[in-house]
Amino acid sequence: MTQLIQAKSGVITPEMKIVAEKEYVSPELICSEIAAGRLVIPANKVHLASNLKPIGIGRAISTKINANIGASPLDSNDECELTKMNMALKFGADAIMDLSTGGDVDSCRCNLIDHCPAPVGTVPLYEMIMGGKPIEELTYDDILTVLQKQARQGVDFFTIHAGLLREHVPLAKKRLAGIVSRGGALLAKWMTYHQKQNPFYDIFDDICDIMREYDVCFSLGDGLRPGALADASDEAQFGELKVLGELTRRAWAKGCQVMVEGPGHVPYNQIEHNMKIQQELCDGAPFYVLGPLVTDIAPGYDHITSAIGATAAAVHGASFLCYVTPREHLGLPGLEDVKQGVIAYKIAAHAADVALGLPHAREWDDKLSTARANLDWETHLALAIDTETATRMHQERRLDKTDHCTMCGKEWCSVRISRDLKKD
Amino acid sequence: MTQLIQAKSGVITPEMKIVAEKEYVSPELICSEIAAGRLVIPANKVHLASNLKPIGIGRAISTKINANIGASPLDSNDECELTKMNMALKFGADAIMDLSTGGDVDSCRCNLIDHCPAPVGTVPLYEMIMGGKPIEELTYDDILTVLQKQARQGVDFFTIHAGLLREHVPLAKKRLAGIVSRGGALLAKWMTYHQKQNPFYDIFDDICDIMREYDVCFSLGDGLRPGALADASDEAQFGELKVLGELTRRAWAKGCQVMVEGPGHVPYNQIEHNMKIQQELCDGAPFYVLGPLVTDIAPGYDHITSAIGATAAAVHGASFLCYVTPREHLGLPGLEDVKQGVIAYKIAAHAADVALGLPHAREWDDKLSTARANLDWETHLALAIDTETATRMHQERRLDKTDHCTMCGKEWCSVRISRDLKKD
Repeated sequence: MTQLIQAKSGVITPEMKIVAEKEYVSPELICSEIAAGRLVIPANKVHLASNLKPIGIGRAISTKINANIGASPLDSNDECELTKMNMALKFGADAIMDLSTGGDVDSCRCNLIDHCPAPVGTVPLYEMIMGGKPIEELTYDDILTVLQKQARQGVDFFTIHAGLLREHVPLAKKRLAGIVSRGGALLAKWMTYHQKQNPFYDIFDDICDIMREYDVCFSLGDGLRPGALADASDEAQFGELKVLGELTRRAWAKGCQVMVEGPGHVPYNQIEHNMKIQQELCDGAPFYVLGPLVTDIAPGYDHITSAIGATAAAVHGASFLCYVTPREHLGLPGLEDVKQGVIAYKIAAHAADVALGLPHAREWDDKLSTARANLDWETHLALAIDTETATRMHQERRLDKTDHCTMCGKEWCSVRISRDLKKD
Repeated sequence: MTQLIQAKSGVITPEMKIVAEKEYVSPELICSEIAAGRLVIPANKVHLASNLKPIGIGRAISTKINANIGASPLDSNDECELTKMNMALKFGADAIMDLSTGGDVDSCRCNLIDHCPAPVGTVPLYEMIMGGKPIEELTYDDILTVLQKQARQGVDFFTIHAGLLREHVPLAKKRLAGIVSRGGALLAKWMTYHQKQNPFYDIFDDICDIMREYDVCFSLGDGLRPGALADASDEAQFGELKVLGELTRRAWAKGCQVMVEGPGHVPYNQIEHNMKIQQELCDGAPFYVLGPLVTDIAPGYDHITSAIGATAAAVHGASFLCYVTPREHLGLPGLEDVKQGVIAYKIAAHAADVALGLPHAREWDDKLSTARANLDWETHLALAIDTETATRMHQERRLDKTDHCTMCGKEWCSVRISRDLKKD
């Protein structure tokens, strides 16, 4: 019995109640949104039975953000990933994806799930070919075996790249940047080698059965997400998206919860259209986007290029934002990269929630600005998204203990003058 | 003879030709846009005669960004400000404002102008009350004397807070954050004390005469810009904006070039309306905005909260973006803050230019992405907005000398696989 099946029968689960309370909406709304496929609660029964605090993802409620972590064969280890996870959660990540591609992945994953009150997602394809196994050797059995195992371990959502079909591969070859999704590239290689259809597509019904058993939520992967502005909104991307819509309906029919993944690199003026077309093709299933990055020119600063796109995306329909860290395109994120990525995305998600007028969203802004206007630095800094950094920056310029800063100095402080004017 | 007067007579100046060439448009277009008041070339005759390389500001051409620097009584000095200026120019600032409020301001300003090929702006009000002079003692003569002197020194644009009228002050008292513009707060204090109209408004025609003599461009200050989301788009803000429209037309009639300053803190969903209403009330005069910040919650990260708003603002009509540094609200920006602010704004301006489809705007993105797709790290990193940072980040994770990074490792590198697929 997944959340979707129960919602369709009108059953309000304890998880729906928890989500409703967090979001200041009624449990009935959560239930009807889930039934309509517009909202998911990624909550594997195993994780739920241990330490998961359920969250909802859907445009009827607040925007959620995900932080990708994980070891690679070249870097990191269990403890380091746990530290990254805790850093991400501390600054407001709503979900964590373990994208490990090296080390003891089972140990790393179980360790993260054990310590993570937020939903944990994975891209199971990675484990299927770990340890130097060529992608060409991937079998249907490998796929189902790994999915079974990870579902049993308590993973709450799986990225399943089932929408990139054989017929899309030639379209991707025309691109400036080709296929930049790791899963997408690997599957294109498999299909090209075997001259067969995407194996995840071929055994999609079997995959649904596993997902349903544990209520693992689908995150239908976009193997053809554009990796450069030049490739955005092209035939390859929208061809795959159409298939993701078909798979969404198939998964729903099997009782599974579904999110759909989206781009990537998209010029700012194409974001609204990208959001609307996903809603249309995927019948309102929650859209889980990576950025999008609104320019390609800024490796080292792609938490910023993508936070700009993420805000626009959330305002126009995306409900789940996958962070991009400053180290995107350059290497695996370290602890500080994780922090910077989460903060940029918390800003984007919050700005979108304010713009959408979600219940109570602006209270945080108003409280902080009230403290600022009262020259109440203690409350002001305590309410900052990153109190430690804001406090350090303020102290470096305070120079003495008085209640002003170096921006204007005491006599010219607009806040001080404004306060005096109010008293008149 | 200002650029505006000449444009109105159909004269194409050497400066218009330079701007046209930089922007891939015809000199005739630049001339007609200036004549219509929709484009300015802030180029004081004195600065032009020495080292100024003219730029154009207007929505028909690429988005420009400004970096505020300047000493305060509590911090900094000439040499430090020069270093900040050079840092800002290195990362793409199109203009510099010297907002010094302390130290030897004449020496600092002249030193900056002497070394700055970009237009330099100031808020002359600051010098009028320097050295502990109470704002209440400000006279009409003080205003004209300082404007004359700074115009003679070669300042290219002046922020003149002439639009905040006596009748607006009560409106600002209703606000959560009151008046957060330093100039606005000081003038509100003056008007309240003297029970008289804004002195800059009262002697606006005399100010125009000085501006015209040197072709100093007006930057009509928004003393009532909202300093909190709660105050955005309120009666005070739009009341002042209406007066700025009136002053724009008065300055044009006097032959002066005009930009109009804008907010501030504005929820994302109100940005488009804010841009449109300025264009309407100010007859298309270039809009010079500070951000806007789309949330108040992130002191320490306001280069990000505001780059999100700045991108949207530029797409919807603003043509000149005043940067906000990470230290905004917390203290005077240091060298690293200046760098971070400029980079965030260069990203915003460029993303907007790409979105608007400006000529050649996307070439930078396409070149960088082509290098990325070719695994040509040298070109990729050389084209990055901040080569040094991108290179450091890449090297920290390269681990060895091979042509891949820790993001995926060699075997799973999507770019590598994608390149191989293309060869098939």
